[in-house]
Amino acid sequence: MTPKVLRWLAERIGTPGASASVVPDAALEVPSSSLPRRTRAGLAAVVGAEHVLVDPAERLGRCGGLSYLDLLRRRRPELGLTVPDAVVLPADPDQVQRVLDVCVEGDIGVVPFGGGTSVVGGVTALRGDKEAVIVLDLARLDRLVSLDPDSRVAVLQAGVRGPEAERMLGDRGFTLGHVPQSFERATIGGFAATRSAGQASSGYGRFEDMVVGVRLATPRGEWRLGVAPASAAGPDLRQLAVGSEGTLGVLTEVAVRVRPAPAAERYEAFALDGWQRGTSAVRELAQRGLLADVTRLSDPDETDSSLALAGGWKTALLRRYLRGRGIGEPCLLVLGWHGASAREIARRRRAAIRVLRPEGAVALGAAVGEAWRRGRFAGPRQRDALLDLGVCVETLETATYWSRLDELRDRVRAALRDSLDHPLVLCHVSHAYETGASLYFTVLAVRDEADPAGQWERAKRAASEAIADGSLGTITHHHAVGTDHAPYLRAEIGDLGADVLAAARRAVDPTGILNPGKLV
Amino acid sequence: MTPKVLRWLAERIGTPGASASVVPDAALEVPSSSLPRRTRAGLAAVVGAEHVLVDPAERLGRCGGLSYLDLLRRRRPELGLTVPDAVVLPADPDQVQRVLDVCVEGDIGVVPFGGGTSVVGGVTALRGDKEAVIVLDLARLDRLVSLDPDSRVAVLQAGVRGPEAERMLGDRGFTLGHVPQSFERATIGGFAATRSAGQASSGYGRFEDMVVGVRLATPRGEWRLGVAPASAAGPDLRQLAVGSEGTLGVLTEVAVRVRPAPAAERYEAFALDGWQRGTSAVRELAQRGLLADVTRLSDPDETDSSLALAGGWKTALLRRYLRGRGIGEPCLLVLGWHGASAREIARRRRAAIRVLRPEGAVALGAAVGEAWRRGRFAGPRQRDALLDLGVCVETLETATYWSRLDELRDRVRAALRDSLDHPLVLCHVSHAYETGASLYFTVLAVRDEADPAGQWERAKRAASEAIADGSLGTITHHHAVGTDHAPYLRAEIGDLGADVLAAARRAVDPTGILNPGKLV
Repeated sequence: MTPKVLRWLAERIGTPGASASVVPDAALEVPSSSLPRRTRAGLAAVVGAEHVLVDPAERLGRCGGLSYLDLLRRRRPELGLTVPDAVVLPADPDQVQRVLDVCVEGDIGVVPFGGGTSVVGGVTALRGDKEAVIVLDLARLDRLVSLDPDSRVAVLQAGVRGPEAERMLGDRGFTLGHVPQSFERATIGGFAATRSAGQASSGYGRFEDMVVGVRLATPRGEWRLGVAPASAAGPDLRQLAVGSEGTLGVLTEVAVRVRPAPAAERYEAFALDGWQRGTSAVRELAQRGLLADVTRLSDPDETDSSLALAGGWKTALLRRYLRGRGIGEPCLLVLGWHGASAREIARRRRAAIRVLRPEGAVALGAAVGEAWRRGRFAGPRQRDALLDLGVCVETLETATYWSRLDELRDRVRAALRDSLDHPLVLCHVSHAYETGASLYFTVLAVRDEADPAGQWERAKRAASEAIADGSLGTITHHHAVGTDHAPYLRAEIGDLGADVLAAARRAVDPTGILNPGKLV
Repeated sequence: MTPKVLRWLAERIGTPGASASVVPDAALEVPSSSLPRRTRAGLAAVVGAEHVLVDPAERLGRCGGLSYLDLLRRRRPELGLTVPDAVVLPADPDQVQRVLDVCVEGDIGVVPFGGGTSVVGGVTALRGDKEAVIVLDLARLDRLVSLDPDSRVAVLQAGVRGPEAERMLGDRGFTLGHVPQSFERATIGGFAATRSAGQASSGYGRFEDMVVGVRLATPRGEWRLGVAPASAAGPDLRQLAVGSEGTLGVLTEVAVRVRPAPAAERYEAFALDGWQRGTSAVRELAQRGLLADVTRLSDPDETDSSLALAGGWKTALLRRYLRGRGIGEPCLLVLGWHGASAREIARRRRAAIRVLRPEGAVALGAAVGEAWRRGRFAGPRQRDALLDLGVCVETLETATYWSRLDELRDRVRAALRDSLDHPLVLCHVSHAYETGASLYFTVLAVRDEADPAGQWERAKRAASEAIADGSLGTITHHHAVGTDHAPYLRAEIGDLGADVLAAARRAVDPTGILNPGKLV
């Protein structure tokens, strides 16, 4: 963090009281492993003793994901770390199945673990009613199993990380096009388990739109789904497996729709005057089928922060230029185009600009778009730095229909402002559909060092209730449920929905070993 | 049927042995209603006595749908008609819920009934383990509940028929764009319950793509799903309700994505040389995002039949013309364009034709396309007429990935030819995706009057096993499961899938009153 950023932050939210760095592993008291000897031997027989890790550092390394509470606990371990009893690394889907068999036998909880990037507590090593819990780390399931270029279907193992997937597919001329902020670490299995949506979802679709088949290991044996692009053979059970967050089985392979790698890309930015013009423009693009592959609209506060952080005389000039063009309250719109040729992109751009112009959009050119692109995976690192500085920083996201979007934004902003002391609340639309859009909030406040977890909990509850109240929006558009959103899922899917999920879970996992305490 | 058609048919499949007309109601022996007096009174208290029908004609009118066996039974009643004990017509979602409450109390089976157009036995009034079964006819739930033009979301009651939906939406400038062959009679609830795909699904999507929310009445109370266009709040339970065929509740309202009614439409046809060129062209269109809203490719046999039935000197000239253009084995490709303007359509057409030309496509002009469009809902009527004439006529459909499409077609054709005596087997692709396509087969043979049901069962089994064997394709792309496909569902979704569906069913319907004997 530069002095400029620190000054900006102090002006917006006040001066943080105390910095707090991550406590080194050596300084932490790690409970010894409760894994029964018999189970440990059984696991070693499946994956090899060298892939059953009980070393404190290995277990600490998979005790959670990247949620605010996860990050906070690494700085304030007195809040309670949830350390698994072992980390198990199977080599292939068959070994995953046999690991589950051993855990059923021993009645051991199993937390499937991909990149460990859950921001909602999805990989916290909760025990539930089990005496021990293992983390099932899928890192060794790292293969491209097959690629069918005619059908544009690739089968990837669950532990393949985003960049590796792109590299392996890219070698054959294809791309998945799935680039969420967690891209650098997150895995194919995690994308599917959480209904991930990437930054380019307007062009490539949400991850669940890409999934054509799944292979799961479950306590009752292997389960495969997906024999055709579309089917009327009853409910789409693929869409039950997708988003099941490890509670209906461990995804071992995912068949995904791929596309030719784009030969051309172009990122650029526009400014629109105010939230209404901005969302109206994005809605028009979405409903006319003219969205760029990446389409991201910042609200005035987020835009203002971006401009302030860019800083200096250039920003001052830009603000003046925009005012001269009638834009007093700029909303930044980033468009990223991927295409088979520059010509194809040019054609799509022209059509989009015909929609943007009547909305008063002012082109800011490629440099601003490219700047966004360069920094697009930096969020998690910035978050770590802010946490070190004593800032309470959280992101949360929701989605709703267009006609309710303003109300939803207003209510979440009000909830965050009422529940925190002088917070900075930024918002953007990153995923637009014909019928509605997502809202992504970033909130910063001076951390309450006396009760940092309580501060977060109050704000999270206020925001979540604002979303859930009257079914105004979904509790999560692409971060999944985990533990953070579990209290609000029932309101969204009804008691019957929760009962159906619980019944499905019992059907595949009668003794409840899979990801205890998550989802429902 | 004209003499020309009869001659053509005799040449192809032989001369049918005997005609058989529908037996008039008065000639049928209808069992008396087993509905307990107490239940009848309870139902009458909810919907009014005039909406609880026990008259034989009313009950006969809802004893099944339009499957081959349904149609055969009306001509050969000795095969056994399954007549419900009453027909109940609630007025609104609240009455539907209260009807279910009465049926739970009396342990009476409930068959939800929309247009009665199921071709797979989905609305057959099976009793299961119940002493009586009612048909819950949703005809009175015929309202457009709301229309949100900004979000392009309409809420329609489940009993609204296709044409009525289009009329009500059209009055406000919108369309659903869902036109399956059953369009004239089928309902919104039926479309959702069966994962219907319309003829224009390439442009408007399958029905499940249009559904953004559902309201169901269940034995455990009302269930509402869908608060946002997209969500990561666990598995997508909407996709569990969609395709549940009345086993997870009675759909009473469906929220659907609508679009502006097209200001321009254009239908036209092309010929391609052989199945390989034809499917290659459709695949290219699908993978480049250039499909027409209606995209339909007939195989050489289906094309030949269409030409023969059009008949006369024009057909002879056309064949000669095509041979001159290098097309010896023509495959007919119908493209139907819907757009906001003729200019928009022209632009999309140009892009598509750039793909079709290298595949050797020959334009046949608008007249052939328009002829297809005029006759596109005529299938069911032609089928009735053929049945009267003593023809065994059935359609079946499947879907798979592009790389398996040829093998799937070959195997189903072989299965039908091996299991029937001199059948005519026609095939077309009516729904194309980036990763694969559907195959729709029409099969005609002289009816085996000694064992007409056995003849059908052998052929259906042979075709279904060809599809299911090695998971080559889905047992149904858009006709749903009903009773006809129920034996093959388990192979497609696995024992675990069947168990999950059964568990979900028990969760919402503990006593199993909903649509007994269907799906699983």
